[in-house]
Amino acid sequence: MRNVKLLLEYDGTDFVGWQVQPNGRSVQGVIESALEEILGEKVNVTGSGRTDSGVHARGQVANFRTSNSLDSASLRAALNSLLPEDIVVHSIEEVGPSFHSRHDAKERTYRYYISTVETAVERRYTWYVKYVLDLQLMNDAAERIVGEREFEAFCKLDPERNHTRVTVTSAQWTASLPRLTFQIRANRFLHGMVRALVGTMVDIGRGYLTLNDFIEALEKKNPNGVGMAAPAKGLFLEEVKF
Amino acid sequence: MRNVKLLLEYDGTDFVGWQVQPNGRSVQGVIESALEEILGEKVNVTGSGRTDSGVHARGQVANFRTSNSLDSASLRAALNSLLPEDIVVHSIEEVGPSFHSRHDAKERTYRYYISTVETAVERRYTWYVKYVLDLQLMNDAAERIVGEREFEAFCKLDPERNHTRVTVTSAQWTASLPRLTFQIRANRFLHGMVRALVGTMVDIGRGYLTLNDFIEALEKKNPNGVGMAAPAKGLFLEEVKF
Repeated sequence: MRNVKLLLEYDGTDFVGWQVQPNGRSVQGVIESALEEILGEKVNVTGSGRTDSGVHARGQVANFRTSNSLDSASLRAALNSLLPEDIVVHSIEEVGPSFHSRHDAKERTYRYYISTVETAVERRYTWYVKYVLDLQLMNDAAERIVGEREFEAFCKLDPERNHTRVTVTSAQWTASLPRLTFQIRANRFLHGMVRALVGTMVDIGRGYLTLNDFIEALEKKNPNGVGMAAPAKGLFLEEVKF
Repeated sequence: MRNVKLLLEYDGTDFVGWQVQPNGRSVQGVIESALEEILGEKVNVTGSGRTDSGVHARGQVANFRTSNSLDSASLRAALNSLLPEDIVVHSIEEVGPSFHSRHDAKERTYRYYISTVETAVERRYTWYVKYVLDLQLMNDAAERIVGEREFEAFCKLDPERNHTRVTVTSAQWTASLPRLTFQIRANRFLHGMVRALVGTMVDIGRGYLTLNDFIEALEKKNPNGVGMAAPAKGLFLEEVKF
């Protein structure tokens, strides 16, 4: 069996998320159907991160095993011609038999985009925040995330998860007005973690929560220090490193 | 009668273009309907440029006359809450009685975006060109456009037009790979002009037409020196100066 690695981009707007679900159009499901048509056999595609409904990806990595010997360039061309326009396969390569997109990923990078003005053209890919935001305060909060920490207060319940410890390598807000970008790199991400962190930092930036509320929430001493989750549409899985 | 000026952004994907047409959803028509609902009277909205079906705008300017005395801030809030999400009114101000969005515009700026890789996230706003493009050659062609010239070969027939003379202030390609951007400023634009120019310069960049074909087409000595029009989705009306 060959082990094949894919580098994928997708617009998450019209998907129920990465993972196959009983009802609804999933990225994994659409790719598995296209591969079955091309390869003549059912395959199981494993992604590095299970992006939620509405979350986009510029650098999702996935892999699958097949007995078909079609070369990578032909497979990529066949996939891109068969896939809908909201999924693009940027590269395909054969990898060693033990490679696993999720288990072997060492670092993932997510970005979250906010627009400080209402926008028509960017509306599918940014969150419009109408409040005046103090970027310095938001970066003070972002600094507190870096390092090895428990993020139990900043994730949804997940029965498959055995711990909530995450090592964050970097977390920073930058501004290129009217756009604000939050970039975070970590060894792993918990379900809903980036959106909960962004929503909370926006609450800090607009003066609704304090930095101290946030620090206490991180230390699990103040559940009220966690803001509403930011909308999915501003979130992108940018890169996965192995 | 007050004369009111609007600064508008829209995503042209789902419109038949700026101008009201017997059938189909036009930007002008949607704005006129919203204004009628707010102001309680029919108004006629004049745009600086009649963008085609699928063409976007970040800086379209329009104006209309009304006897309603609603202040600009309230009108803007009412409009943005009533308009669909693919149109945003960025500002509203009252202007002198003689102001006319089309006749008074001194300079318009358009941008055209090309992606050199297939893309899911940018697919609604860029043209994916799969050929290898020589940007230097494309800029050699762009240089030839600058100045006061006849663009009869690079426009569609338009019964309302009395001449095809255009003064181009600047025209340039820049690269921020995988994206190429063409920006052009001129006193006026003929129907289909930017898309015909972009399509032709792409043909030059990929080696299908020569710079000499293009020069001869500009001088109306070679109708075969004009390429296919580039798709509407990559084109943005960026700015209008008065």
